[in-house]
Amino acid sequence: MRMVDLIEKKRDGFELSTEEIQFIVTGYTKGEIADYQMSAFLMAVYFQNMTDRERADLTLAMAASGDQIDLSAIEGIKVDKHSTGGVGDTTTLVLGPLVAACGVPVAKMSGRGLGHTGGTIDKLEAIEGFHVELSTEDFIKQVNDIKVAVIGQSGNLTPADKKLYALRDVTATVNSIPLIASSIMSKKIAAGANAIVLDVKTGEGAFMKTEEDAKELAHAMVGIGNATGRQTMAIISDMGQPLGYAIGNALEVKEAIETLQGNGPEDLTELCLVLGSQMVVVGGKAETLEEARAMLLQVIENGEALKIFKQFIESQGGNPAVVDDVNLLPQAQFKTEVPSKAEGYISNMVADDIGTAAMLLGAGRATKESEIDLAVGLVLHKKVGDFVSEGESIATVYSNTEDVAECLRVLYNSVEYSSESVEKTPLISAVITD
Amino acid sequence: MRMVDLIEKKRDGFELSTEEIQFIVTGYTKGEIADYQMSAFLMAVYFQNMTDRERADLTLAMAASGDQIDLSAIEGIKVDKHSTGGVGDTTTLVLGPLVAACGVPVAKMSGRGLGHTGGTIDKLEAIEGFHVELSTEDFIKQVNDIKVAVIGQSGNLTPADKKLYALRDVTATVNSIPLIASSIMSKKIAAGANAIVLDVKTGEGAFMKTEEDAKELAHAMVGIGNATGRQTMAIISDMGQPLGYAIGNALEVKEAIETLQGNGPEDLTELCLVLGSQMVVVGGKAETLEEARAMLLQVIENGEALKIFKQFIESQGGNPAVVDDVNLLPQAQFKTEVPSKAEGYISNMVADDIGTAAMLLGAGRATKESEIDLAVGLVLHKKVGDFVSEGESIATVYSNTEDVAECLRVLYNSVEYSSESVEKTPLISAVITD
Repeated sequence: MRMVDLIEKKRDGFELSTEEIQFIVTGYTKGEIADYQMSAFLMAVYFQNMTDRERADLTLAMAASGDQIDLSAIEGIKVDKHSTGGVGDTTTLVLGPLVAACGVPVAKMSGRGLGHTGGTIDKLEAIEGFHVELSTEDFIKQVNDIKVAVIGQSGNLTPADKKLYALRDVTATVNSIPLIASSIMSKKIAAGANAIVLDVKTGEGAFMKTEEDAKELAHAMVGIGNATGRQTMAIISDMGQPLGYAIGNALEVKEAIETLQGNGPEDLTELCLVLGSQMVVVGGKAETLEEARAMLLQVIENGEALKIFKQFIESQGGNPAVVDDVNLLPQAQFKTEVPSKAEGYISNMVADDIGTAAMLLGAGRATKESEIDLAVGLVLHKKVGDFVSEGESIATVYSNTEDVAECLRVLYNSVEYSSESVEKTPLISAVITD
Repeated sequence: MRMVDLIEKKRDGFELSTEEIQFIVTGYTKGEIADYQMSAFLMAVYFQNMTDRERADLTLAMAASGDQIDLSAIEGIKVDKHSTGGVGDTTTLVLGPLVAACGVPVAKMSGRGLGHTGGTIDKLEAIEGFHVELSTEDFIKQVNDIKVAVIGQSGNLTPADKKLYALRDVTATVNSIPLIASSIMSKKIAAGANAIVLDVKTGEGAFMKTEEDAKELAHAMVGIGNATGRQTMAIISDMGQPLGYAIGNALEVKEAIETLQGNGPEDLTELCLVLGSQMVVVGGKAETLEEARAMLLQVIENGEALKIFKQFIESQGGNPAVVDDVNLLPQAQFKTEVPSKAEGYISNMVADDIGTAAMLLGAGRATKESEIDLAVGLVLHKKVGDFVSEGESIATVYSNTEDVAECLRVLYNSVEYSSESVEKTPLISAVITD
């Protein structure tokens, strides 16, 4: 088999066989296929797309390119959830305990990542003593005991994807549905998921700017999941404005606790209920999404979800008292209100810009070496559709520096007003199950 | 300017500016742009094509990537001729003296090349003493004196094209009209041509298998030539069967001499008259193709063309007596007739296979290191459309080894017969002037 012939085959629109895709992924991972051949192949895929079968084969080949986590010692269907990323997305913190309380095992491998705020691990580390350095044995035992555990990324997971992503980034081949979908799904499969629930964000704060693109990506990933024997569901959710009110690590932990108590922001709560319902269904604990939703509402109301969250914190070395007293979380030195400069209905709050404002305070990493300040961030008081008077606070800035002028400048620029009432963008625009 | 943005721009179907194309070609030649970015770009060009303006800019940028030959000291319009390559193509040997005799300066830089037979230089070296190692001064003086000279390739011509071609070869991006056209045209422009005549071959023995592809390539090259101020014309000619009868270096010199004497094969003579007419027109020595053709016929008839050929040989150290006595050319030790195994009309003589048969005798180079045997080759006695009786000789094999079984096997396989009369494929299917 010669790579040049496989590039030509894809270029000319023919379907590659399973063996051919394995040859490409294995050869590239080992360095036997050169970057310049792979990038030409990726561009050919960009133009010619891949069939469902090719996508599934590519995903499995990438998942098999490195270590694969064996979660078979955990009872039940291991459900993983993935979000394509947004601003103020606290869902993982809520969903873990929530679906665990319904009996679905959540064995989550998570990262720190770059971005406006930290990743799930950074957020959890805002809880004093919390750590993710578990042995595999302790990780599995914890999931069997209390149905939820989070472990830091370790081992050599999907090296093919890492190498491919770095190449795509410099060759204008990132934006290809089969390549994005197989990248995400290969990581979930290598991390041991039996079933997957996907939150595909759309809007200005998201990677997929249009709903059409988001739907195409969701269908692609659900297709791969189902073709590889991992039941998969997806939703399309809005990331035009931030999710919830809090953007910042400790601030989002507080918001997650409130949500588990039944007092969270409406949009975050709804998103957790929709994604959670899918997780309970694909986890085999309910027949229908309606039945699952009722279960989730019950474990919020009866305190079971919150109880699991406490056990989860305690089990990973954290102080569970934060759940009852959120003032135990890291506190910022300065609080600055952000008075509205105009009166009217808020017509836009650009999620990306608000995320940048939080990052300027130190809430996120600009580079891998950046130190995160877990205490800082923003809490919005208004969202799109809300009416605001001039001088009324639209947000509170939590900072450890007195000068927050640059953050405020970015924040003010992110908000647009309308004199007439504004229709709210629906949070969830589609539920995709096949 | 970042290469990744330019890849994306081309990928998305936008037109690149002159500066952007220069950035790409210069950066790649210097090694500042990586192979993996260039190959992704080339694949994007494969799918998105290039506008006429982009093609002209790419050609000029490649021509400017290395040395450019200055032929301004030669009087008149310097016309170069290029063939996309075939089997038994002796036209350059005939055309040089032929158009020189009409006053068009032919300052030819030529190579040896790989293939079924040698390149123009190899063929000329079949004449005892002939050499192409001229100083630039002598080269220019000779063209001014007798209107024709051939020099070996020297200097660092179009390094961008060399590097790009090597990359295209392993990334399935060879077969792209704008890339093929700019590659050919950049070399002609760097070699100092003011005007260019192109012979685009089509058929089984050619790179362009269909007439449609050949026409597209011809239009692309004529477009580039005219956009860069080099008047360019092209023809589409058949390479389904070999051109002329002789395939082999000394054998083709003999055929060239016969053609200059007015006794050449019909197809070779016609091709030389058509291409020569275009050269005389773009060289500014005739107004119309008809006028030019009359001039060419005249210099054949009055012996002027043959006289120039003798002067040309003498001027480059060769023995001009070969023109009057072709037995002075290298002679093969063995002559083998090839009796037809069937009776009927010849319906096909696969040019590629006949070329391979000649190469098996030693007439061409399989690798750069191969030694050419200038004496060996084939002379066909029949061509497509001719009737042949069983046992009648269809060709003579000239060899320096007694065993020519493998050559004969390939040769026999290349010939197909029909019981009914066969229409000859027209030699020239199109003349393209814009």
